[in-house]
Amino acid sequence: MENPAPPSLKDVPTPALLLDERRLIRNIARLADGAATLGVSLRPHLKTAKSLAVADRVTGGTRGPITVSTLAEAEVFHDAGYADILYAVGIAPQKLDRVRALRARGCDLVVILDTAAQAGAVVRAGVPAMIEIDCDGHRGGLRPDDPLLVRIGKMLQTGGCLRGLMTHAGESYTVRGAAAQARFAEMERDAVVAAAGALRAAGLDCPVTSVGSTPTAHAARDLSGVTELRAGVYMFFDLVMAGIDVCTLDDIALTVLTTVIGHQPSKGWIMIDAGWMALSRDRGTAAQDMDQGYGVVCDESGRVLPDLIVGIANQEHGIISRRAGSGGPLPDLPVGTLLRILPNHACATAAQHDRYHLLPQDGGPLQVWPRFGGW
Amino acid sequence: MENPAPPSLKDVPTPALLLDERRLIRNIARLADGAATLGVSLRPHLKTAKSLAVADRVTGGTRGPITVSTLAEAEVFHDAGYADILYAVGIAPQKLDRVRALRARGCDLVVILDTAAQAGAVVRAGVPAMIEIDCDGHRGGLRPDDPLLVRIGKMLQTGGCLRGLMTHAGESYTVRGAAAQARFAEMERDAVVAAAGALRAAGLDCPVTSVGSTPTAHAARDLSGVTELRAGVYMFFDLVMAGIDVCTLDDIALTVLTTVIGHQPSKGWIMIDAGWMALSRDRGTAAQDMDQGYGVVCDESGRVLPDLIVGIANQEHGIISRRAGSGGPLPDLPVGTLLRILPNHACATAAQHDRYHLLPQDGGPLQVWPRFGGW
Repeated sequence: MENPAPPSLKDVPTPALLLDERRLIRNIARLADGAATLGVSLRPHLKTAKSLAVADRVTGGTRGPITVSTLAEAEVFHDAGYADILYAVGIAPQKLDRVRALRARGCDLVVILDTAAQAGAVVRAGVPAMIEIDCDGHRGGLRPDDPLLVRIGKMLQTGGCLRGLMTHAGESYTVRGAAAQARFAEMERDAVVAAAGALRAAGLDCPVTSVGSTPTAHAARDLSGVTELRAGVYMFFDLVMAGIDVCTLDDIALTVLTTVIGHQPSKGWIMIDAGWMALSRDRGTAAQDMDQGYGVVCDESGRVLPDLIVGIANQEHGIISRRAGSGGPLPDLPVGTLLRILPNHACATAAQHDRYHLLPQDGGPLQVWPRFGGW
Repeated sequence: MENPAPPSLKDVPTPALLLDERRLIRNIARLADGAATLGVSLRPHLKTAKSLAVADRVTGGTRGPITVSTLAEAEVFHDAGYADILYAVGIAPQKLDRVRALRARGCDLVVILDTAAQAGAVVRAGVPAMIEIDCDGHRGGLRPDDPLLVRIGKMLQTGGCLRGLMTHAGESYTVRGAAAQARFAEMERDAVVAAAGALRAAGLDCPVTSVGSTPTAHAARDLSGVTELRAGVYMFFDLVMAGIDVCTLDDIALTVLTTVIGHQPSKGWIMIDAGWMALSRDRGTAAQDMDQGYGVVCDESGRVLPDLIVGIANQEHGIISRRAGSGGPLPDLPVGTLLRILPNHACATAAQHDRYHLLPQDGGPLQVWPRFGGW
């Protein structure tokens, strides 16, 4: 299915993933500028993109530092010239052979961990590691005052494997507005600064202190003591990010192109050929102030059609309806009409597709950018 | 990433999709026997499997009639020798060129529709169609007493394109137990029998009457007037089907193999490397009597670990915890332990993977069965 790029949207088999290059470039520049202002290096997370072409735009062609969520990503990006990679999921000891193989090929691949068992395994394998710090109770990591932090730090430093500390305020996704998100940015900073202090007080090194999530990366005002910022979904944005005011609907660079395939007029339903297979099952806006169903409906040009959402999704069917509480008749959208759906969660929606159909910012013909998956 | 099959589970990079051949074969035989007893032909839906090897088991090597949910499936299966295919998603007129191309290559590919606009398009294209009937208000289709049914039937028959009628009781997923599901099976039968009667009363032909969903296919007791049964997820089953008593946990043929990567003892959390990327975002059991989170936890051999579920899923992290209300300490599952997760929804979970790791029923070495996606 390695087809050449179709000449226009009307020639794209639906459902399909569209990427608006103008918005992509604007989003990338926004955070690059923010990181420069804050005086930290940016290590973009490519788990959302999984695309060499997107990575090239994100790193400005430098092949600079990146973050990944799978060893498959590390392998693909290293093959394309990226040599400074953080694998930001707690390392399973069984994966260290693959890590070592990549390192032997010249990739400075660094892992993360938060247990003594993992520290022992990485020291035996001779693989550098960052210790994961828990700043907000979201997921993994050690609290900065956990005595295990210094114990693991000593194990790693003795083995020549201590690179530093990293944290991620995943709970920042649950609060709305820059002021609330800035408090999570402070929690990230406070946690790694305190943890680095604990390591240094024990005579250990901590050259790298890495923080970030898309909300905190945009809200942070002071990153003193932090060396590096990470974020991923910012390059595309999505309805979840718009719902907490990190971006607007006009910043969302990904849409799913779909075709109207039927109607149930008595129910106010418009049927489309994008179900959860194309949109993903992600319902990240369900807990937000504005539940966007499985996505916000736009016309073929990307203009939002007011109050229309994909309310129901089956495998290959989506059902568009009016948002609860909104009035008025449905617009006339005959069978065959092309629509575009703004996704809840760019990472989940993109993962359902093996390619982007790029809408170039110069208005030129569509391009196909492959994306990959797997582990 | 076309690796040879790993020799044992310990060599499979996690997360990975496992398929238990013994359960697969048993599930296939159960519905094949049921259809034979009911006197209808079975047209398995391969949207869940998306695999030539699974299709071969499902059709007993006959390359008999199948159902698909995308034209990509139709193309792949036709290339492998399947020539009797129902594309069971309302046809978009733009897709008729691809349908005609397949038909020109000898594939008896039939589409479905429920609008006059679609009927006009398929007649112009010379493509045979089934009219979709709505039996339960679930999704698309015409009610049997809708005057449009006969109007569309006449358009199709005049154009030589009328194949018959199909319906799908998607709402049968919302009721528990064979008695309740049998009522939906009756609704499917009643709807197509009534609709076929309306066509015949108007002097039209209706050679095929097709019904089915996994719950109704197993619960149906009398399919008089029905010629054909469709079902898809039955070959694998999942927690949603177990939650409405169509199967037991012991029938579920798919699991996601995962590795323990950490712990948060103060929270009762065990971290694994299977997040929603491996499990899918599907939360189909959320509305059932027993909410199974993102999946039920089993040991490496597939034995259920009582009251442990994946309670939280991030992209590449799962968080195992005790089911709400259950007591006792967590089992000792050190970093590196292999576990297996029973999925909520086999269609959604399988879609996250590009291969099955088959556990052969003869106990022989693992096999890799590729699966495909796309549209």
